[in-house]
Amino acid sequence: MCELLGMSANVPTDICFSFSGLMQRGGETGPHKDGWGIAFYEGKGLQVFHDPAPSCQSEIAQLIKQHPIKSKTVISHIRQANVGSICLENTHPFTRELWGFSWTFAHNGQLDQRLFDLPLTSYQPVGTTDSEYAFCWLLGQVRERFPERPSDFSQVIEFIHCCADQLRELGVFNMLLTESEYLLAYCTTKLSWITRRAPFGRARLTDEELTVDFGRETTPHDIVTVITTEPLTDNEHWRKLQTGEMIVFREGVQQPLSRCFGHA
Amino acid sequence: MCELLGMSANVPTDICFSFSGLMQRGGETGPHKDGWGIAFYEGKGLQVFHDPAPSCQSEIAQLIKQHPIKSKTVISHIRQANVGSICLENTHPFTRELWGFSWTFAHNGQLDQRLFDLPLTSYQPVGTTDSEYAFCWLLGQVRERFPERPSDFSQVIEFIHCCADQLRELGVFNMLLTESEYLLAYCTTKLSWITRRAPFGRARLTDEELTVDFGRETTPHDIVTVITTEPLTDNEHWRKLQTGEMIVFREGVQQPLSRCFGHA
Repeated sequence: MCELLGMSANVPTDICFSFSGLMQRGGETGPHKDGWGIAFYEGKGLQVFHDPAPSCQSEIAQLIKQHPIKSKTVISHIRQANVGSICLENTHPFTRELWGFSWTFAHNGQLDQRLFDLPLTSYQPVGTTDSEYAFCWLLGQVRERFPERPSDFSQVIEFIHCCADQLRELGVFNMLLTESEYLLAYCTTKLSWITRRAPFGRARLTDEELTVDFGRETTPHDIVTVITTEPLTDNEHWRKLQTGEMIVFREGVQQPLSRCFGHA
Repeated sequence: MCELLGMSANVPTDICFSFSGLMQRGGETGPHKDGWGIAFYEGKGLQVFHDPAPSCQSEIAQLIKQHPIKSKTVISHIRQANVGSICLENTHPFTRELWGFSWTFAHNGQLDQRLFDLPLTSYQPVGTTDSEYAFCWLLGQVRERFPERPSDFSQVIEFIHCCADQLRELGVFNMLLTESEYLLAYCTTKLSWITRRAPFGRARLTDEELTVDFGRETTPHDIVTVITTEPLTDNEHWRKLQTGEMIVFREGVQQPLSRCFGHA
């Protein structure tokens, strides 16, 4: 199993605070020692750092911790290998281009062998994980259904929800997915989220004894949503997603979905 | 115009030496101040660092300089913007997946507006550069011609050579391209290369007053080929590619091509 972290914000925001908590779990306070990765968007542009080394030892992770990159959309993943060996090509998040957008995907959980019977169309996995296979299948489905990006993105969201439900029948499928603007989160077993709006209160990390006062670092209009496998702070109220639930954020704000979760 | 650097080696090799020279040109001794990027392969796995900032100021570049990643295949690019604004999505190298391989592309030169009449099929640009458009067209052509990776890769190389000749008719097209194993270099105006085999002599960087003794850092069986826009050292013999010439390296060794350059 692996740890996921996603962020959606209405202003370019340092992920530093939340990532700092997740880093500690990468081999220090958690078992996720088999690599980590983080994807930052700057507009449509994408920067991805991958490292098969444990995040708590990683020089790249230290760089990001010390010199955080400001971004409105972030997906990060810390891995404990179950399917696929520990190597760069098996390190999340995975990316593919569709409609001239760089899509990024990270998965927590494990899917059974029936996954590999699902037909791949436009995208082929580079590595050997169930996660990358699932991503290639999912994005191929989206591409077949929508050869061009529809003006109403909610159609895409609804379709992805259906595909995610199919994957959930094959095992545990907790997912973060984005094309830069919309951050989609799908839950089978565990995902929690919180939206922080200015004025921010003081928040304390669960993993490190560190308190950050968000009020000092942001403006009065800021909205920042963070989604993680487990809550990162212990003095705030995190909302837990239910099985089969998908939520979508844009500019930090939860988007209305045309379909209720659980409605197959 | 921009500076290219490629490396092909038979053992995972620090790019540190050659990159160090290229870095100095990114805004310090050269005009290439509009971003830089570097792609390292570990097997089929790909790590790409992009930074729209000048490389001589970049913290990520400093990280790579101080903690070099060992790789057998590397492509790097330092940009001086001509087409497309300075932003992350316009920063080389560009990557796309084909046949379950991550392809990486970097371009030096400029192509005229007729480029944008070439039809795109499977790949769409995320940014607005002529370079990424050319890459999307080129890889789409390869994909249409070879829906699956042929067992004889020389067919692919020959086909790419034809496509590169077509692009050269539209302007200056100096290119580095790889799918992890083969490093392809195509020249319109300037590309030079050198193959270093053990025992390595002492080499001096052109940009910085620094001498590195390769013999101390490598084994007797090492072969390392470096391809750059301009020679990086001034005490070694670099070979210059001719207009329309393509050369291909695998494990640091030049591969025989079935077609002579210039034969349209």
